[in-house]
Amino acid sequence: MSTEPVLIAGTWREADSTGTFQAENPATKEAIPTEFPVSSWRDCELALASAAEAFVALRSIPEEQIARFLECYAEKIEERAEELVEIAHQETALPKSPRLADVELPRTTGQLRQAAAAARTANWTHPVIDSANNIRSCYGSIGPVCVFGPNNFPFAFNSIAGGDFAAAIAAGNPVIAKANSSHPGTTKVFGEAAHEALQETGLPAGMVQLIYRTSHSTGEQLITDDRVGATGYTGSRNAGLALKKAADLAGKPIYLELSSVNPVIFLPSILEEKAEALAEEFTGSCLMGTGQFCTNPGMVLLIEGEDAEKFISTVKEKFESAATGTLLSGSVEKTLHQSHKTLTSAGAEVCCGTSEGSGNGYCVANTLLRTDGASFLRNPETFQTEAFGNSSLVVTAASIDEAVEVIESLEGNLTGCIYSSETGEDDASYDRIAPVLRQKVGRLLNDKMPTGVAVSPAMNHGGPYPATGHPGFTAVGIPASLLRFAMLQSYDNVRADRLPSVLQDDYDGPTQRLIDGRWV
Amino acid sequence: MSTEPVLIAGTWREADSTGTFQAENPATKEAIPTEFPVSSWRDCELALASAAEAFVALRSIPEEQIARFLECYAEKIEERAEELVEIAHQETALPKSPRLADVELPRTTGQLRQAAAAARTANWTHPVIDSANNIRSCYGSIGPVCVFGPNNFPFAFNSIAGGDFAAAIAAGNPVIAKANSSHPGTTKVFGEAAHEALQETGLPAGMVQLIYRTSHSTGEQLITDDRVGATGYTGSRNAGLALKKAADLAGKPIYLELSSVNPVIFLPSILEEKAEALAEEFTGSCLMGTGQFCTNPGMVLLIEGEDAEKFISTVKEKFESAATGTLLSGSVEKTLHQSHKTLTSAGAEVCCGTSEGSGNGYCVANTLLRTDGASFLRNPETFQTEAFGNSSLVVTAASIDEAVEVIESLEGNLTGCIYSSETGEDDASYDRIAPVLRQKVGRLLNDKMPTGVAVSPAMNHGGPYPATGHPGFTAVGIPASLLRFAMLQSYDNVRADRLPSVLQDDYDGPTQRLIDGRWV
Repeated sequence: MSTEPVLIAGTWREADSTGTFQAENPATKEAIPTEFPVSSWRDCELALASAAEAFVALRSIPEEQIARFLECYAEKIEERAEELVEIAHQETALPKSPRLADVELPRTTGQLRQAAAAARTANWTHPVIDSANNIRSCYGSIGPVCVFGPNNFPFAFNSIAGGDFAAAIAAGNPVIAKANSSHPGTTKVFGEAAHEALQETGLPAGMVQLIYRTSHSTGEQLITDDRVGATGYTGSRNAGLALKKAADLAGKPIYLELSSVNPVIFLPSILEEKAEALAEEFTGSCLMGTGQFCTNPGMVLLIEGEDAEKFISTVKEKFESAATGTLLSGSVEKTLHQSHKTLTSAGAEVCCGTSEGSGNGYCVANTLLRTDGASFLRNPETFQTEAFGNSSLVVTAASIDEAVEVIESLEGNLTGCIYSSETGEDDASYDRIAPVLRQKVGRLLNDKMPTGVAVSPAMNHGGPYPATGHPGFTAVGIPASLLRFAMLQSYDNVRADRLPSVLQDDYDGPTQRLIDGRWV
Repeated sequence: MSTEPVLIAGTWREADSTGTFQAENPATKEAIPTEFPVSSWRDCELALASAAEAFVALRSIPEEQIARFLECYAEKIEERAEELVEIAHQETALPKSPRLADVELPRTTGQLRQAAAAARTANWTHPVIDSANNIRSCYGSIGPVCVFGPNNFPFAFNSIAGGDFAAAIAAGNPVIAKANSSHPGTTKVFGEAAHEALQETGLPAGMVQLIYRTSHSTGEQLITDDRVGATGYTGSRNAGLALKKAADLAGKPIYLELSSVNPVIFLPSILEEKAEALAEEFTGSCLMGTGQFCTNPGMVLLIEGEDAEKFISTVKEKFESAATGTLLSGSVEKTLHQSHKTLTSAGAEVCCGTSEGSGNGYCVANTLLRTDGASFLRNPETFQTEAFGNSSLVVTAASIDEAVEVIESLEGNLTGCIYSSETGEDDASYDRIAPVLRQKVGRLLNDKMPTGVAVSPAMNHGGPYPATGHPGFTAVGIPASLLRFAMLQSYDNVRADRLPSVLQDDYDGPTQRLIDGRWV
């Protein structure tokens, strides 16, 4: 069987490969026959040269054309929806419906269309004009962007179709996508659709390129190359931190979405009111998608007592009676077992799970662990080990004081939730906990599980390190997510006809501009 | 003589010092008697604890009070203007008038007042509301900020009074200021004024703290501490990169302003039209403040020929006949000599200068070096060595093609300027050069020297690495500069009375909000 070609410089060509790999069907643990190449530096070099050329060509291409590409691409994805759902299901074991076909695919095309609107309206550029000084500024494209997508969203965060891709393209940057090794076949279909859309809309050949895999060192060389503007990475903490270190040393912006335990706090009165209903809500959120969400509630903080015990025992029952989902890969299964071992070695008690799962293929039994606040505080770093999958750790604090201390000991997270009673009885506790939690998370929730991440302009899918690499940026939400792939550009005394259109005096487009201190 | 106290936790107290240092009068090379302490980790630890406490206290302090502090502080600075000008002149040899008294001091108090307005109006928080999803976001404070100021602006970039300080405070963060060792006495006066303003306006004791110096390792420990939100650094590239490395590894945002050669390109027709006038304009910009500006034009790019030679010989004459200014310190003098040696060793010819200066104290003769485009391109990194001071390197390119190549080989810079004829004869060259230069610089200028940095909302005093650490942020210009010391905070389903006021439905303040896709 021949190895799949890569998409470089506008053509599907044989990779200069140092090896091959295959995806696996996680539900059967069987390899999927198609062979994908591991690209050498030579492939990266060609892709970089073509991306740099595309970035030059983009100077004379109107934003409208970029917008049309994104929309045309969304249509082509819809035309191939069945094929995409089929292969993604094979490669990830995620349910075809509703998950892949009815939720993630529409989300993906929706993102591309929102990105098209952002490109068309330039609503992400924040034009500012100081007439007296004749200084004008706006955000502009940063240069070719490398995108490394995660395993858990084969569509919506796919490196050649997902949020980072859409944001980077809409901001006027070519993308070099590196597939996630767990779903290369899905990524290939996207690559084909993107390539067709490129051709139909006449964007430069190097605007969208695809390689499947590289060695770690080649990956680092790629993202630190002079021709690269920035990198978007979503995935495991270790691989992400290695890329971050390389990018930081080279002075290249890198936007990472790493691990997060997403603490959820149930305050005493709300727990007293409805421990069982909360257990139900929590179970749904924690086991959804076999727990493989960046925003999965991996840590629950309770004040110890009868209601806490009732919550824990109810969740335990529900976890035990719920079906065990299939994990995305053998590697996810292995890492989940390792995380459980780390947590139990540190003293976490097993309420249920940690054992082999009874589901199809790769799986681990639905797992609930527990520890108390004092134990957590003796070893906060270890107890924050992310157990990516259908697993959560309950921490019972002796008091609100101790709960505050636990939250103070947390690393940066994507989300933090507080459930409190409507009666006002939890308000004093809320007021002590919320400000501490606020600084630790990108998104603060009330009375709601964190797993839904709406593609909203007000969304922050981000947070302090190590949830991400910089707390000022979001990976979800348009137009804000475009700012990751932009640089601030000031024009001082630049002649009128040489300015970007959003900075010209006679601009009449839809974007809000700050002119001499007034929004116009 | 006793050692000066440090300002920690609201009191001027004896430092836990590991040594002392004195400033020097660069015009006389004599030490100024006052002894300042080198702080140990213990001082930093106390300052961090107090800053963290202040950050907690700030939760219940209205923005109005922060604004009043900044304004009160500006008044106190004005009350002590004569004293500040006197001591800054002694410590830096910068002229009292107009530079210190009439330009830099008003700029400094102006920045504080603009920052006060930003704090009061919250115009930096970018509120976004998605009513349908009940998700709301805005930028919020990031936590205690460490500020390391540079030697060249004893007022406007002073670590306890300058742009970083004003931005960090206005964004709601306590500041731990580390003085620049070349003007500790100036910094002390600011510290006293800030302390009085703090007391009068009732802000927490740890809101503004001052230490004078630490060892490198203690400085790194300081900025990577868990309690720190971010760091602002302006200064030499080496020290800045060491701090960046430490901060990056700890996942702490750091905003750096490092070195920049600020290329200026005179296109052929404008040079033909007025080589002498341009030489005059360039000389004024290059020698102003003895060339010690971040935006000093350290590199001039010309197309070889008679007009280029005329420009060079005119500048040479002007440099030779101009007075030689005093440099900020012995270290600046030494580094300038070293840079000249690096450049001449690489093959740069000396048009004039490089020798000892005939001015007062530390000085180097006004220096003009030259090389050709081919030589530059053989060794672009070395030829971009910043010669911080009254010095510039002329590069003569054989053609516009070669000039484009030279610009392509440039690192990131704060500014880049292109002078071109109004006749349109330079336009084709401009169109080739400007897009390449645009991506290399934070601020692109036309027909204007880069040394003036207006405090304008449209200013970008920033640029790609290594001019700064991230091309998305500016160090000058309010409110944009506040975003460096902020994190993006999303509120998902958070109850109305728990939201920041800018995100509440009944907000009636002055800040523009993006509500359901419409600016309101």
